[in-house]
Amino acid sequence: MNQEFTVPGFLAGGMHCGIKVGENKDLALIFSTTAATASGVFTKNAFKAAPVLLDQERIRRGMGQAVIVNSGVANAATGAEGLDDARRMSSFVSQELNIADDLVFVGSTGVIGDRVPLDKIRQGVPALVANLRETGWEDAEQAIMTTDRIPKMSIIRKAIGNREVTLCGIAKGAGMIEPHMATMLAFLASDIAVEKETLDKVFRSVIDTTFNAVTVDGCMSTNDTALILANGRSGIKPVRRGRDLQIFRDMLHHVLSELAFMMVQDGEGATKVIEFFVEEAKSLADARKIAYAVANSNLVKTAFYGEDPNWGRIIGAIGSVREDIPAHKVKVDFEGVPVFTDGKGIPGVEKDIRVIMAAPRISVRIRMGMGTKSFRVLASDLTHEYITINAHYRT
Amino acid sequence: MNQEFTVPGFLAGGMHCGIKVGENKDLALIFSTTAATASGVFTKNAFKAAPVLLDQERIRRGMGQAVIVNSGVANAATGAEGLDDARRMSSFVSQELNIADDLVFVGSTGVIGDRVPLDKIRQGVPALVANLRETGWEDAEQAIMTTDRIPKMSIIRKAIGNREVTLCGIAKGAGMIEPHMATMLAFLASDIAVEKETLDKVFRSVIDTTFNAVTVDGCMSTNDTALILANGRSGIKPVRRGRDLQIFRDMLHHVLSELAFMMVQDGEGATKVIEFFVEEAKSLADARKIAYAVANSNLVKTAFYGEDPNWGRIIGAIGSVREDIPAHKVKVDFEGVPVFTDGKGIPGVEKDIRVIMAAPRISVRIRMGMGTKSFRVLASDLTHEYITINAHYRT
Repeated sequence: MNQEFTVPGFLAGGMHCGIKVGENKDLALIFSTTAATASGVFTKNAFKAAPVLLDQERIRRGMGQAVIVNSGVANAATGAEGLDDARRMSSFVSQELNIADDLVFVGSTGVIGDRVPLDKIRQGVPALVANLRETGWEDAEQAIMTTDRIPKMSIIRKAIGNREVTLCGIAKGAGMIEPHMATMLAFLASDIAVEKETLDKVFRSVIDTTFNAVTVDGCMSTNDTALILANGRSGIKPVRRGRDLQIFRDMLHHVLSELAFMMVQDGEGATKVIEFFVEEAKSLADARKIAYAVANSNLVKTAFYGEDPNWGRIIGAIGSVREDIPAHKVKVDFEGVPVFTDGKGIPGVEKDIRVIMAAPRISVRIRMGMGTKSFRVLASDLTHEYITINAHYRT
Repeated sequence: MNQEFTVPGFLAGGMHCGIKVGENKDLALIFSTTAATASGVFTKNAFKAAPVLLDQERIRRGMGQAVIVNSGVANAATGAEGLDDARRMSSFVSQELNIADDLVFVGSTGVIGDRVPLDKIRQGVPALVANLRETGWEDAEQAIMTTDRIPKMSIIRKAIGNREVTLCGIAKGAGMIEPHMATMLAFLASDIAVEKETLDKVFRSVIDTTFNAVTVDGCMSTNDTALILANGRSGIKPVRRGRDLQIFRDMLHHVLSELAFMMVQDGEGATKVIEFFVEEAKSLADARKIAYAVANSNLVKTAFYGEDPNWGRIIGAIGSVREDIPAHKVKVDFEGVPVFTDGKGIPGVEKDIRVIMAAPRISVRIRMGMGTKSFRVLASDLTHEYITINAHYRT
């Protein structure tokens, strides 16, 4: 299989149009040469950014052909003027590409409250379109990054029937990462053939266990957007059920998991990725709540940063969720080494736990003894660097 | 009025018995020379520490005469052995003071998971009792401190009828501070006369707007305890209703507010105290939820540390609570200077907001435009020092 980062029928690009300082890329474009089936999942924040409002309106139709994204300014908390700005961003692209305006989606990420500099974007779009390339995904990725330190890209190819199908994704996000997708933008492109209804269902369900199962700082953004375009260029019949649908689901899971992991790994200031796996919970909702209570505890997160085997903080976080948790039934282990059982700590394991905590990736299992439901969340640690990055984000 | 820190009929003291390193005090005792009416409010954490379980059992009777508290070890997550240790701590005191054992309350604070060194406590108690003094409150306070940088003590005297009534309180707590009282211990003593039922009611309701309206790091502890002993030595008739009850309520509010403010001010690594005042919410529960969502947002807290007028993070936190918040109705101001209204930011206020944010105490008002309920929470900022303190608490 060809491991080049390209998807049949898709072009991409990125450029510096003048929003960010220096010569950093700040404007990205993704284009399908034919109209594609589209699906999107958006932030649940009440203060949705203007581009999110626009995309939510357009996604209903289930079709799309282009995505324009700027970084540096979020176009959030900008009122009616902001929504108008998002529409104008879209129109620059639809005119230049000569496609219907409602096939264009818009994304923005950066500081909340500022208007997007429309003139710079209008002046940039012709060059952006002229430089669209099949291999332009890395440029597009660079142009959507903000506090990200590493680019986040993933691609997979599989056979469906006797055809090769490709799915790729690019993402940004390092802070404001939490359930309901956080300040993350993710754009996926595939040459698979799939109808709107099937795409919506699979996309949402895979997001629930990938993008919606990570946390950096427990903060939810106004701009979160995950969009997928599927243009059918592989020539297969639309996947609907059975083995073909399972292959597509697995491909989505692969790409979204990789992107989600990269976001946590690149979490602002993060030095470690910790997997909290809650098992034997009463309900899925409980399992999620407990996993996030632990993963978002600043005391737990700083303990991992300090490699301090202070498992008591994990217990404290679990216990804060519900007063009726049976303390004597809960078991906690680090990479299979038990630290807590029968309502108390296990003596003599501190040295082993210190060794485990020194690794860049650590798995903690929490068994609740209350039922059969489980949930896994990936979290970063909380470090001095997180404070440095966020205390003066704008200055 | 006499401003000495004494309460008629109460003795207090603190000593170093050998739990903490160096010569830091680690064992405190409070003693009422006659049995007192007692009330307590405890953590809602499912993993309640052994002393909390013991106190909850004893508080039902509504009487108390002594409180023994150790710092350095929390006696939490210690199972049946831990509960036995707490009982033995109590028995050392009841034997030495020659009082009924179930009139003794126990408190512990420090690392979760370790057993208390009973021998050291047993050996310490005789000297602790021998050195009890009317003016021993400062020693007691020092002996309950852990990561606290400043002692937290408050006292007030008021006339009820023609008698003087005194209420004092000492507290510890700097991290793990959140609703439901956090790792904070607070012990209050008064010579007021009051019956159990009245005391329970007033104590709980005042705690709801003081100790349960602060946050440092959003973490809930296993050991939170607030205990009050009222020994009636002022000679007044028991307060039950009307003006006398109002005076007592005001006294409690004064002392608990002062202690709560000191805890936030002394929040681990804190450089600022921020008051988030949510008004016009649909329900009290909503007002609380929104106030805490903002007050516990790491992005909001680091922006205050950096004195960065990034009000968009406040908007993001508000919006994360409920998707149906009407964004255009919400208004935010900093010390009366509006920053957000009609769904967007107000231009040109950044310089004013920077000046406001440079102060050590800042008030932010959030008007929801959804109803009439309000809630106020005091929060600390999130700093490099918080990370330093918590990454290596035990090492």
